[in-house]
Amino acid sequence: MRYKCIVSYDGTGFAGWQIQKGYRSVQQEIQQAISKIANQPIKIVGAGRTDSHVHAVGQCFHFDLDKQYKDIRKAINSQLPKDIYIREVEIVDESFHSRFSAFYKHYDYLVNDGPYSPLLRNYCYQIHDRLDEELMRKATKILEGTHDFTSFNATSISEIENQVRTIYKIDIERRDNMVRLSFYGDGFLRYMVRILSRCLIEVGLQNLSLEQLQKMLLAKNKQVCSYNCAAEGLYLIEVSYLPY
Amino acid sequence: MRYKCIVSYDGTGFAGWQIQKGYRSVQQEIQQAISKIANQPIKIVGAGRTDSHVHAVGQCFHFDLDKQYKDIRKAINSQLPKDIYIREVEIVDESFHSRFSAFYKHYDYLVNDGPYSPLLRNYCYQIHDRLDEELMRKATKILEGTHDFTSFNATSISEIENQVRTIYKIDIERRDNMVRLSFYGDGFLRYMVRILSRCLIEVGLQNLSLEQLQKMLLAKNKQVCSYNCAAEGLYLIEVSYLPY
Repeated sequence: MRYKCIVSYDGTGFAGWQIQKGYRSVQQEIQQAISKIANQPIKIVGAGRTDSHVHAVGQCFHFDLDKQYKDIRKAINSQLPKDIYIREVEIVDESFHSRFSAFYKHYDYLVNDGPYSPLLRNYCYQIHDRLDEELMRKATKILEGTHDFTSFNATSISEIENQVRTIYKIDIERRDNMVRLSFYGDGFLRYMVRILSRCLIEVGLQNLSLEQLQKMLLAKNKQVCSYNCAAEGLYLIEVSYLPY
Repeated sequence: MRYKCIVSYDGTGFAGWQIQKGYRSVQQEIQQAISKIANQPIKIVGAGRTDSHVHAVGQCFHFDLDKQYKDIRKAINSQLPKDIYIREVEIVDESFHSRFSAFYKHYDYLVNDGPYSPLLRNYCYQIHDRLDEELMRKATKILEGTHDFTSFNATSISEIENQVRTIYKIDIERRDNMVRLSFYGDGFLRYMVRILSRCLIEVGLQNLSLEQLQKMLLAKNKQVCSYNCAAEGLYLIEVSYLPY
């Protein structure tokens, strides 16, 4: 039977989601824990990769097991290090696939435009000037919708030819010195959320005009935007699925 | 001349404020940084010690230097690790003393009564049942004011005989699953904030009645309360001084 899991992790101590020889990965830790419980090697399939130092509140993965375990969530968590926590486990139809069944993904990017805080150093992107959120909100209207995002990601065209994606919504919300950029979309290419976050930040700092942003988007050219943003500020919040 | 500094740090990586041979301490890191800049050994005096894993948003310390340095704050920060940050530096009267001049101190204690979050594991105390904040607010009325807090701290009577302290106010505030207990007082004895936090939590969980709490306070006896609370949830927010 197929198990669907929702997992939260602190990305600080990981080289990312995906297994890489010689590095600590989230996938590796979870596979080890489940394999120990199942007493056989188990492979898990994530909804998507998160890069080194990127956090997850609600990453999703699935795996197959022939047996039904009682309170498997608790059992897995007891084998996991403290920076990974399985929030939910449910048995789903065999047709469910964490990646292919995904309906939309929600990422947040956190920016601190107040004084540096050592307590938040691994959990946000620090900038030194005040953001103009109203200007940023105007810029989101350029990016929302279905566009070719070739200019705003690091996936080569040879790897994925079709770089058209749909961003359903981008929300900008301030709480004191912390500005949260929330992205909801059908899929995001490599570094896309971080690059778009940086574009919005540069608009908010008045270093990039709405006209320039619009031109970048229409250029569909990886040379026109060299922006990126620290991994520490990025959170995979939720992978959403249609009821199956 | 005397320098007054306000410093913020993430307590996770430290054995506490105070220098201890063989352990990483906040005081040691700051003294090293200032000594390097001053080109001579400098001792700093903190407003109080924080224990291992306890955080600070606004710890205060002072030190003496014969020279006036230009932008010394930036210079010190450039020598410090990323988990310590000097927020403010000012030159004060020689009569100022970070500990003896303190007027009141403000500590926060954070409790998560929602699901465990790996992202917050070093930054709050995790409990597994819901807190009743209204009940906790009633309990604060027992603890506020001037009392002998012998029952609620770990400082031996032989060390400090007078264990009468004044708590000006205790605020309880919820934001989603995070309950913040804010303590304002003229001074706190060893483990006092953590022990009082745990008392309030046990009241909020209905494991301790208001009558029992009142009795504990009046007993003035270290045997009547064995509660304590994880250091991870504790923050020294501010040391306040009268205008001098």
